[in-house]
Amino acid sequence: MPRVTFIPEDVFVDVQTGENLLRTAMMADVGVTATCGGDGTCGKCRMIVEQGDVEAIPSSRLTDDQVAAGYVLGCTTQVVGDIVVRIPAESRPGAAPARAHSQRTLAPLLTIEEQAARVPLDKSIPPVLRRYVELPRPDLCDNADSVSRLRQALRREHRVRDATFTLEAMREIPGVVAEAEWNVTALVVDPIGGAPAITRVEPGDTTDQQYAIAVDVGTTSVEVALVDLNENVIVAQCSEYNRQVKLGSDVITRVIAGSTLAGLVELQHLVADTITDLVLQVCAEADVSVPDLNAYFVAGNTVMTHLLYGISPASIRFEPYVPVASEFPLTTARKLGLPGGPATQVISMPCPASWLGGDIVAGVLAAGIPWADRLTLFVDIGTNGEIVLANTDWLIACSCSAGPAFEGAGIQHGMRAAEGAIEQVRIESTTLEPAILTIGNVKPLGICGSGLIDCVAELFLAGALERNGHLAPHTASSERVRSGERGMEYVLVHAEDSGTGSDIVLTETDIESLMRAKAAIHAGISVLAECVDIDITQVEEVIVAGGFGHYLDLERVMALGMLPELPLDRFTFIGNSSLLGATHAAKSSEMLKTAHKIAEMMTYVELSVSAGFMDHYMSSLFLPHTDLARFPRAQQLIDQRVVIEEAS
Amino acid sequence: MPRVTFIPEDVFVDVQTGENLLRTAMMADVGVTATCGGDGTCGKCRMIVEQGDVEAIPSSRLTDDQVAAGYVLGCTTQVVGDIVVRIPAESRPGAAPARAHSQRTLAPLLTIEEQAARVPLDKSIPPVLRRYVELPRPDLCDNADSVSRLRQALRREHRVRDATFTLEAMREIPGVVAEAEWNVTALVVDPIGGAPAITRVEPGDTTDQQYAIAVDVGTTSVEVALVDLNENVIVAQCSEYNRQVKLGSDVITRVIAGSTLAGLVELQHLVADTITDLVLQVCAEADVSVPDLNAYFVAGNTVMTHLLYGISPASIRFEPYVPVASEFPLTTARKLGLPGGPATQVISMPCPASWLGGDIVAGVLAAGIPWADRLTLFVDIGTNGEIVLANTDWLIACSCSAGPAFEGAGIQHGMRAAEGAIEQVRIESTTLEPAILTIGNVKPLGICGSGLIDCVAELFLAGALERNGHLAPHTASSERVRSGERGMEYVLVHAEDSGTGSDIVLTETDIESLMRAKAAIHAGISVLAECVDIDITQVEEVIVAGGFGHYLDLERVMALGMLPELPLDRFTFIGNSSLLGATHAAKSSEMLKTAHKIAEMMTYVELSVSAGFMDHYMSSLFLPHTDLARFPRAQQLIDQRVVIEEAS
Repeated sequence: MPRVTFIPEDVFVDVQTGENLLRTAMMADVGVTATCGGDGTCGKCRMIVEQGDVEAIPSSRLTDDQVAAGYVLGCTTQVVGDIVVRIPAESRPGAAPARAHSQRTLAPLLTIEEQAARVPLDKSIPPVLRRYVELPRPDLCDNADSVSRLRQALRREHRVRDATFTLEAMREIPGVVAEAEWNVTALVVDPIGGAPAITRVEPGDTTDQQYAIAVDVGTTSVEVALVDLNENVIVAQCSEYNRQVKLGSDVITRVIAGSTLAGLVELQHLVADTITDLVLQVCAEADVSVPDLNAYFVAGNTVMTHLLYGISPASIRFEPYVPVASEFPLTTARKLGLPGGPATQVISMPCPASWLGGDIVAGVLAAGIPWADRLTLFVDIGTNGEIVLANTDWLIACSCSAGPAFEGAGIQHGMRAAEGAIEQVRIESTTLEPAILTIGNVKPLGICGSGLIDCVAELFLAGALERNGHLAPHTASSERVRSGERGMEYVLVHAEDSGTGSDIVLTETDIESLMRAKAAIHAGISVLAECVDIDITQVEEVIVAGGFGHYLDLERVMALGMLPELPLDRFTFIGNSSLLGATHAAKSSEMLKTAHKIAEMMTYVELSVSAGFMDHYMSSLFLPHTDLARFPRAQQLIDQRVVIEEAS
Repeated sequence: MPRVTFIPEDVFVDVQTGENLLRTAMMADVGVTATCGGDGTCGKCRMIVEQGDVEAIPSSRLTDDQVAAGYVLGCTTQVVGDIVVRIPAESRPGAAPARAHSQRTLAPLLTIEEQAARVPLDKSIPPVLRRYVELPRPDLCDNADSVSRLRQALRREHRVRDATFTLEAMREIPGVVAEAEWNVTALVVDPIGGAPAITRVEPGDTTDQQYAIAVDVGTTSVEVALVDLNENVIVAQCSEYNRQVKLGSDVITRVIAGSTLAGLVELQHLVADTITDLVLQVCAEADVSVPDLNAYFVAGNTVMTHLLYGISPASIRFEPYVPVASEFPLTTARKLGLPGGPATQVISMPCPASWLGGDIVAGVLAAGIPWADRLTLFVDIGTNGEIVLANTDWLIACSCSAGPAFEGAGIQHGMRAAEGAIEQVRIESTTLEPAILTIGNVKPLGICGSGLIDCVAELFLAGALERNGHLAPHTASSERVRSGERGMEYVLVHAEDSGTGSDIVLTETDIESLMRAKAAIHAGISVLAECVDIDITQVEEVIVAGGFGHYLDLERVMALGMLPELPLDRFTFIGNSSLLGATHAAKSSEMLKTAHKIAEMMTYVELSVSAGFMDHYMSSLFLPHTDLARFPRAQQLIDQRVVIEEAS
C-alpha cells in the first residue's frame, strides 16, 4: 500500500492505490480546507506533491506556474505510490496543529472480496435455480406422463428428488415440450424443509439467465442487489428511502399505522412500490429480463417483514410483544405486488423475535459469526440498533430504537448514503472551518450517517459542543454558527458550494437525535455484556454494519461514546450486512439453512423489561459518557484540542 | 325378505320390504301392462292381492268393488310381507306365457351400507379437516410467535407434525386470536407426500362444520356428493350433464377442442360451471355454507381431469398417448373457478394413463379390490368403458370407447338416470306392448342407460330385433313400430302417457349406438382375459359400475352380449363407483393413500395396439355374439320366446 506523508506535520497514512488525496489528508487529520464536496470547483484543497508521483486531473483553478511547482487539488488527485505532500498555508482552515499521532487508519467498508471471505466457500447451489434437462422422447414402451419424465430426468441429472410441480408449471409443459422437442429448463425451488417444487418450465436451455434479487427492507431505507447466480456476483445495486416513511418514520408508528386493514394494505403497497422501482432500475441497468427473475431473498426487521407479506404487525406493539410469524411461507413476487414472472419466488429470512428480524439474521450470517471462533460484537446501526454478542456456542441479541438519524432521515439536511451525501467531515478547531467529502466527489446535497457521525464528533473534539450536546456559548462568535429557525445551527456548507443552492446545516435538534441514538446503542451493548457477565474489552472483534457510506471513522464513533473503546484493529466495517446476507442466501442453499440455524440459536433480551437499560441509557446521553474513564482515548483527544478561545 | 308369488304362473321373487309391486312383477317377468312410468295415472297395472297384506295408495282408477275384491295398482303398491298376487287378464299386454323360471333376481344398486362395507373400516382422519385448539396465552417468558404457538398446539393435541402455513392463513391469525382469545380452529390439509399445511384459521371452535364435495367428472355426466365428514355420510347428491358436451360428445372431440388455448379455457369454464351449479344445489339443499367447504375430491378420467385443471390434453390424442400429468397438484377451488372459500382445497385422484383415469382408480377403491382376495372383473360403463381385471397381486386395465349411449346421451330420447327416466322395461312378445317404470315413479321423460339396455334386450328377446340389431321385418305390422325421421323406430311411450307430451321412441340408430358400445366392452374384457391367460368363467366377482338408475337387469345385460355369462350371484352392481371412491378419499387419508397405491399398481393395456381387439369387437357386434356357444342362457331365452307371428 502506498504511504502518504504530510509535512510539515510529518504524519503518514497508508492507503490503497487510487485513493483520493484529500480523503487521505482527512484520514491523517491534517487540517485542510475543502468546501465543494470533492468535485474540484472550490479549488481550496491545494497541496504540493514534493516527492513521488500522483495522477491528477488538470484544474483551471491552478496556474501553470503552480502546476510546475507541484501543486495539485487534493480532491481531484489519486495516490499511486509513496509520496510526500505539503499542505500550504493558504489551504489551512486555521491555526490548530495536527493531532499527535503519526498514522491513522480509517475503517473502510470491506471490499467485495473481503465481504465474501467472511463466510466459508460453499459449493451448494442456489435455493431457486433453473436446471436444464434433455428428456428421452416417449414411445409406446415408455409412455409415462410428461411430469414424471421431467421429474425422473431432474433426479437423474441434477439429483432433484421428489419434486412437486405447481399447477402453473404443469400448464406450461405441453407447449414447452412441443416447442423444444423435450429439451427443457425447469425452475427448481428448493427451500428449507419440504420437497423441491418446479414452478416453471421453459423451452430449450435458459440456464444462462439466473438472476435473483436480494433486498434489505429497512424501516428508513430499502436497498436491492441484483445477483447473477451463474457468476456469483452482484451486477447492480441501488437504494431508496422506504416510501412507508410517509406514514411514520419509526417502527412503532408503522406498527400503529399497520394495525388497521386499510393501513396495512397501504403500507404493503408502499414498500412493494419502493422495491418495484429499485428492481426495475437494477434490471434495466444490467439488461436483465424482469419476468425471468428466479427469486427474491428478503431480509427485513420483523415489522418490515410482516408489512411486506401483508400480515398485521399489531400484536408486536403490546407486551408480551408477540409477532404473528417468525418464518414466512414461500410465495410468489406477484402475490406481494413485486415485479417478476408468475414463477418468481419470494423467500424471507426468518425473524427470531418481534424486535429481532431477518436483517440481523442475515447480518450475522454475512459477518461469518457461525464460523468465527471468537467473541464477537455485531452492531447493526439503522433506524433500530440491533446488537448481537456471540461466540460459536451462543448468540445473545437485543434491539434498541435509534431513530432514523443514521440513515439521514429526521435530520434537517440528512440524506441516504447516495451520491452527493457528505460522508466525511473534518472541522478545524480554531475557525470551525470544515473540510468535506461527498460520495461520488460531487457538490454536496446533504449529510448521510457517516457524515453526521463525523460532523458531530468533530464539533465535539473541536470544543464546539458541550458534553450534553449543545453548541458551546463561545461558538456564537464563529461565522459558521448562527441562530436558525429551530435554534442554534452549524453551517457545514454555504449555499455557493452546495449542490442544492442552499446552505447545508446541522441543527442542535439533529445533534440531539444523534445523541439519543448513540446512547441507545451504547446502553444496549452494556446490557448484553452484563447478561453474559463479560467485560466488553474481552470482545475480540466488533463488526459494525449499517447503510453508511464507504468509510466510517471508528475513532470518532468511539469519541461520541456510541461504541466501546477498543483497539482499532478489532473493528470491521462491513456495510449493509443485511443485504449481504440476503445475497449469500440467494447464492447458496447451505447459507439459507445456516440463516435458519442462526435464528434458532438466538437468545433475545427484551430491553424494555431489562432493569439496567435505562440507567445505561441515561449515562450514555453525554459526550462520550458520564464515566470518562471508559473512554480514555476520547479523553486524550479532548485534552489535545485547541479551541477557538485559546487560538484566537 | 318378503316373497311375492304371482299366479297363475306360480313364479316367485324375493324383494326388499317396501318394494314396488309393479317392479316386482317386472322382475318376475310376468306380463303386465304399464305405460305411465309408475305414477298411477294410466291405471293399467291392476293386480289382485289374494293372500297377505300390502300398502297401497288409494286410486280413483279402481272402483270400491274392485278395492273390496283385493284390486290394487301395482305401481302405487308396496310389498310389506309375503303375498300371493294374481295378474288379471285385463292387465295382460298379450298372450305370451311367463318365461320358464320360478324365481328371478335383479341386481339392485348396493345400499349405502353395502357400498361402505366393501372397503375396510378405517380410523384415519379426512385429508382436509378442521382442528380446534386452545392455545396458551403468551407472556414475557413464553412469547413465541403466533404461528409457532399454533403449530405446537396442533402437534400436541392432534399430532399434526411440522405444519406449514399459507400466507393467507398467516394473515388471518392476528384477527382470529384477538377475536377468540387464542381459542382457534385451523384447517389442516394433509395430502399425500409433503408436510401438512394450515390454510385457514378461524375464531373459536368451528369443527362442527366439516364438509367436503366428492365429484365424479364424467365425459357425459358430472355427479357431486356433499359429504358430512363428522357424520361420515353423504348428505346430498345430484348430477347433471357435463356442459362440455356442447363442444363434443366423446372424449376425442373434447381433446381436439381442448388443444387450442381458447378451447381449453372454454372447456375448463364449462366443466367448472357444471360443478359450480351442482355444488350450490347440494349446499343449498343441506344448508351448508359454501365458503366453509373443506375440500373437493375429484375423480375423473385423464382427459376430464386435465381439462378441469386447465392443462392441455393435446398429447393424449397422438401415439404414444402421453398425458401431461398423472398426479395433480394440491390447489384451491378458486384457482379452478369452483365455489368455496379461499382455503377450500381441490385434491384429485391420480390418473395412471391417458385412457385410465382417476375415476377408475376411485372405482377400484370403492369396489374394495385391494382388500378382496379373489379374481375380480371391474367394468365401469360410461362414455368410455373401462375394464379392470384384478386380484390382490395385480391389476390390469384397459379402456374402450363406448360412446355416451349408456348415459342417455346421443340417444333420440335419452336422458341421465334422473327422475322421470325410464329405468326398467318389459315388452310382451306377442303385442310388443311395454311395461315401463321410471325413476321416481313419475310420468316418463326419456330413457336412461338401464332402460335402454332393458328395452333393446326385451326387443331382442321378443324376437323384434334381428341379430344385427335391426328391427325384424315382421314388426312392421305392430302398431308400436313405425317409420320415423331417422328410419324405423319403436314407440316406447305414447304422447298421452309421456311427461314431455310427445312420443318417446327408440330408433334403429339408438340401437346401433348401444350395439357398438356393448361390443367394445365385451371385446375389452376378452382382450384382458387373454392378456393374463385366464378363462373368463374363472372370474369370481364381476363388479358393474356406472351411472345407471337403481336397477340393472344383469340377465338382459348378458343377453345383449355386453358382459360374459356367469352365474348371477357373482355380479355386483355398485352404481357410480367413481363418486363413491372420491367420497372414501374425502373421509380418510388412508383411502386417499390406497388410491395412489392402486394407481401405481395398475398395468394398462392399450387396445388400439392390441392385435386381438378388433377381431373381438367385430364378433361382438351381434346379439349377443357371433359365437352363441358363449351365451347359453341367452340362447335359452331366445328359444323360449313366443313372437308375434306365432301368437297371432
